[in-house]
Amino acid sequence: MIRSYTYEKFVEMVKKFHGYAAPGVIIGGFMVDLAYRSLSEEGLFDALCETPKCLPDAVQILTPCTIGNGWLTVVNVGRFALTLYDKRTGEGVRVFVDPQRLENWPEIKAWFLKLTPKGEQDEKRLQEEIEKAQGSIMSIRRVKVARRILKKSPRGGFAICPRCGEAYPAADGPVCLGCADDSLYEPGPHEVGVEH
Amino acid sequence: MIRSYTYEKFVEMVKKFHGYAAPGVIIGGFMVDLAYRSLSEEGLFDALCETPKCLPDAVQILTPCTIGNGWLTVVNVGRFALTLYDKRTGEGVRVFVDPQRLENWPEIKAWFLKLTPKGEQDEKRLQEEIEKAQGSIMSIRRVKVARRILKKSPRGGFAICPRCGEAYPAADGPVCLGCADDSLYEPGPHEVGVEH
Repeated sequence: MIRSYTYEKFVEMVKKFHGYAAPGVIIGGFMVDLAYRSLSEEGLFDALCETPKCLPDAVQILTPCTIGNGWLTVVNVGRFALTLYDKRTGEGVRVFVDPQRLENWPEIKAWFLKLTPKGEQDEKRLQEEIEKAQGSIMSIRRVKVARRILKKSPRGGFAICPRCGEAYPAADGPVCLGCADDSLYEPGPHEVGVEH
Repeated sequence: MIRSYTYEKFVEMVKKFHGYAAPGVIIGGFMVDLAYRSLSEEGLFDALCETPKCLPDAVQILTPCTIGNGWLTVVNVGRFALTLYDKRTGEGVRVFVDPQRLENWPEIKAWFLKLTPKGEQDEKRLQEEIEKAQGSIMSIRRVKVARRILKKSPRGGFAICPRCGEAYPAADGPVCLGCADDSLYEPGPHEVGVEH
């Protein structure tokens, strides 16, 4: 079981949301499950993912935390780790795939450490190992999330940017960050209005 | 209709995924719908959101793009805008809530520009205005997303961080970014392993 779902049901949910049964999201499901089991009681927890790859989708499928509601934070430090924590105190548990625990799982190890070129990976054996290994490839630590991550900045007032004419948080400065750091879009003639 | 869903059905999907019928996600739904209508044909597009607030959830509910599968990028420049674009060329359409189009919609204007304290907002009238206004509060531009956003860095090889013992992209340096910039967690005695 992954939370209240069978493995098969969870894989189906992953396909629907993520587009395909990505190994990283399925392992992520076991990580979320393990994190919940290690928390003292059921409650409302915020989530932190240390990579944008796959893991955030496991969190969004299995917890109330999403990017858009602000309960999930993604900070890309490239580690396959997630933390569920009390949003007031920052106290929680961090679950990560532990390289020392991969020795008995050659397919997972090869996939996780990118030892095999993608085309040569045996997908079926990889899925089988993931389903069998469950949480045994992970370690858990109690942690306290840093204040800077907990702190949700008050939104403050909005202003109209004199450059683009759009609304933006006034605290960002005299022009919006999109105009101050104008590199989201290439300049050019393609930037024309569309009637609707 | 919002894509292939009735307004009521979409609101239900928002409640399920986002936790409640947030005005920003519902407006975001109309923005995604308008973006698709403005694209030359149905196809596979990547998405860019210019704020992490609400909008990414509308994208994740209505498109195949999620944070975890890499087809949705969030760059927080504080503007309520989203872009759907061809991942090869970067060409696409950008939809944003246009302050100049809010004059006939006092509740949306007050909410969008934070003119009314949250407790004094008339939620029911706000929802009614959103449902009536649909795409009329938005403007659209053709844009070309900048190369630096399009470029997905090749993942390269993985290494084991000598400090934390976890796997990380070797290109990040001699230690992982989590250890190099060790401020995700407070140091202290709470950081202990948990048996499982």
